[in-house]
Amino acid sequence: MPRYLQIVHAIREKINQGEWVIGSKLPTQRAIAEQFHVNRSTVITAIEILKAEGLLEGKAGSGIYVVNNRWSLSAAISPPDWEDLTQWSLQPPSDHTVQTINELESRKDLIQLSKGELEPDLFPKAEIATALTRVSSQLEQFGYGNGLGDIGLRIEISKHMQQYGVCTAPESILIVSGALQALTLIAVGILKKGSTIFLENPSYLHSVNLFRTAEIAIKPISVGENGLNIEELFQQKIIKGSSALYVNPTYQNPTGTTMSSEQRKVLMDKCRYFQLPVIEDDIFRDLWIDERAPAPLKTLDPFGQVLYVGSFSKTIDPGLRIGWLAGPEDVIKRLSDVRMQTDYGSSYISQALVRELLSSGLYEQHLQKVRTRLKEKREFLLQLLRLHLSEYATWRAATGGFFIWVSLHKKTNMHQFFRTCLNNGVLINPGFIYNDSQPAIRLSYAYEEIGKMEEAIIKVKEILKNG
Amino acid sequence: MPRYLQIVHAIREKINQGEWVIGSKLPTQRAIAEQFHVNRSTVITAIEILKAEGLLEGKAGSGIYVVNNRWSLSAAISPPDWEDLTQWSLQPPSDHTVQTINELESRKDLIQLSKGELEPDLFPKAEIATALTRVSSQLEQFGYGNGLGDIGLRIEISKHMQQYGVCTAPESILIVSGALQALTLIAVGILKKGSTIFLENPSYLHSVNLFRTAEIAIKPISVGENGLNIEELFQQKIIKGSSALYVNPTYQNPTGTTMSSEQRKVLMDKCRYFQLPVIEDDIFRDLWIDERAPAPLKTLDPFGQVLYVGSFSKTIDPGLRIGWLAGPEDVIKRLSDVRMQTDYGSSYISQALVRELLSSGLYEQHLQKVRTRLKEKREFLLQLLRLHLSEYATWRAATGGFFIWVSLHKKTNMHQFFRTCLNNGVLINPGFIYNDSQPAIRLSYAYEEIGKMEEAIIKVKEILKNG
Repeated sequence: MPRYLQIVHAIREKINQGEWVIGSKLPTQRAIAEQFHVNRSTVITAIEILKAEGLLEGKAGSGIYVVNNRWSLSAAISPPDWEDLTQWSLQPPSDHTVQTINELESRKDLIQLSKGELEPDLFPKAEIATALTRVSSQLEQFGYGNGLGDIGLRIEISKHMQQYGVCTAPESILIVSGALQALTLIAVGILKKGSTIFLENPSYLHSVNLFRTAEIAIKPISVGENGLNIEELFQQKIIKGSSALYVNPTYQNPTGTTMSSEQRKVLMDKCRYFQLPVIEDDIFRDLWIDERAPAPLKTLDPFGQVLYVGSFSKTIDPGLRIGWLAGPEDVIKRLSDVRMQTDYGSSYISQALVRELLSSGLYEQHLQKVRTRLKEKREFLLQLLRLHLSEYATWRAATGGFFIWVSLHKKTNMHQFFRTCLNNGVLINPGFIYNDSQPAIRLSYAYEEIGKMEEAIIKVKEILKNG
Repeated sequence: MPRYLQIVHAIREKINQGEWVIGSKLPTQRAIAEQFHVNRSTVITAIEILKAEGLLEGKAGSGIYVVNNRWSLSAAISPPDWEDLTQWSLQPPSDHTVQTINELESRKDLIQLSKGELEPDLFPKAEIATALTRVSSQLEQFGYGNGLGDIGLRIEISKHMQQYGVCTAPESILIVSGALQALTLIAVGILKKGSTIFLENPSYLHSVNLFRTAEIAIKPISVGENGLNIEELFQQKIIKGSSALYVNPTYQNPTGTTMSSEQRKVLMDKCRYFQLPVIEDDIFRDLWIDERAPAPLKTLDPFGQVLYVGSFSKTIDPGLRIGWLAGPEDVIKRLSDVRMQTDYGSSYISQALVRELLSSGLYEQHLQKVRTRLKEKREFLLQLLRLHLSEYATWRAATGGFFIWVSLHKKTNMHQFFRTCLNNGVLINPGFIYNDSQPAIRLSYAYEEIGKMEEAIIKVKEILKNG
């Protein structure tokens, strides 16, 4: 802290603690300067700041006086009522439980069956360091860019998507900071107010406010063993030009279900007939465990009806803030304009880093490690569930991704259950944050270590037994 | 491109180019497999995709037939009308001229007197490479973070702000992707619909849509030699709880004016009296040329009335996407929640890089180079103006930042003037994009090289002479 600020702090303390009362005269500048071993100009700076704060005042020819302290000041003038201001803003606060979970996910003393992130050991430190060295050696001025993102990265993503059958030119790809931002851009840049978005129930998307903010109505459609209930969807009133479908067909968050190839074809046929635009959230695709997932809806889309969302948050690290959106070129151009109006694009360094990870093959190598480990951990969690929870719950093994969706047999107060788990040191995601009315929990095997997972499931068993 | 996709492309081409007409039978799978030197399963995959696209159809026991081509398909079914969809969305498209300028700023054949970025030679390549090496050696899993941003970076920014007299704890700092995002967060997270925001005129902010999107009314207040016209501001109706002031008091964009210390005190006294929240955009502060700018409004803010916006886009590179917002802790917490709901925070790599640049002193070293160079270039541009444009215009020398605001003497059609400059290879920013009704242009001396600047000003002179 600079010297003059130290003086500001010291004097402010003396005044606010009542050592220097209102009306008292300050020591001379010289005296203060000597006390703090500084020169007089530093003291003058400090006094100016305290004058600006309203604590001190100079009286002509007489010296500097204390005219206020913290309390007299706050009684005289009150600051803007921020609380009142924020209360009516466009963006509502997060759901209380979601906010709590977000905060608790950083607590090291809790067992994290909540966290939808890879375990620390799977963080590709060496791969990132190698890629960063490469990035360092090729540095050039980045600039603002054009909103679409680095062309090199878009080419690599285009190649990456070809691996699962999606042919998309780099011009039809927009780099975003993650799936959430992709959806935000769609919500404010494409959907009109009063539109209806059809959405899986339960769905991760219910835990964020984003469509609500843009005044878009949400219609939940149930999720069965084969994913989205297609029949239920097409029993709804679908208004051309003001409806869209959001769907997460592969390793759905939170239920872990995956739509079969057959179901995907049926869905896309019907969506085509109803001219219903589709937002395909496919961020878990690279995390297949047993075998590759059926091809994306986007591969069944000759007319540019699908906006495809991908991400590296789940496979590398969310701190990169790199994902992408692929769709018809005109739509992508429009959304890149919206992007330029909100945050001017993604970090160039992050983009260059992911580009290097993809082009060097380090990403694919890393994925192989991730898949092996996820398989082990999924097996382990399933075994724990069989061993301890068979009496209390049912579940389905996900074929990829991070999550197992556990449905409890008995009617349970899930708010209370969430709290009891927490009090026992276990953080889980209760189904209600995904808008599920049944007693269910989402368990993640991605983050926590095996020993802790066991400890947690045993605790959950005890809670269910006593509850 | 994978083999099966090559087959898809080849067959699609044959159909669409009319080589294989509708109704014709496809060669056998074996024949196709031989032709492409692949095995039959690859051919089957390709045919499945083409069936999904509606081009092919299997007839039981008879083989595969061409049933559609591109044209018959598009006649039968049309894709969603994206154009219609986007037309009514929450976010309006950018102003046409602003969009044009954004695109033209990447054109190497134009002389860029428009660009508000440092010249390529001032890109701190070596400094960034050094910092990245440091970052590489300290890599740890990043994760989602808490919305506020990396604590190490927030500590460095807190220290940085102390240099100009702002005392802010790291808890009161939110890392953002730049000033634009800071303002977006404030618009959706704090201001209520129907609020009024007072704003300088001309102002950079008029060239973006962001307050319009959030349904916030904009009241322009004129800018004089001393910056914002304070008297004019307080002649307005200021409704407590639904008004705020946006102000860019230091090297204002686009006019280059700076408010004096005296004016700042008057402004803050009045804002305090009216309980008017202040958004202080101070992104050019570190780019002082002749002497340090007067202390920020934030230093005159004992009650937490000011939200302070800073950025590294102008001083290092906009591609980093790192800026910050400082204000009362509760407000910052609220905005970090909004951030978590829109894009989950800034790139960790970018944050770590800036942290290293600040803590190592490399940022400060770089700034010294930047200031020396900006001084040279400003002097040069002023000399050019004196030499060539004295007859046609007046201007004021900015004491920092990037811009000189040039007011033309004669009534001029500025849309036409902008176009004529462009046709002569010179890109300038016309005053009307900043909502200025007078004939004026913003010239940047930051980006273009000296020889080109001279060429451009001579061309502008010719245009004014003939216009």
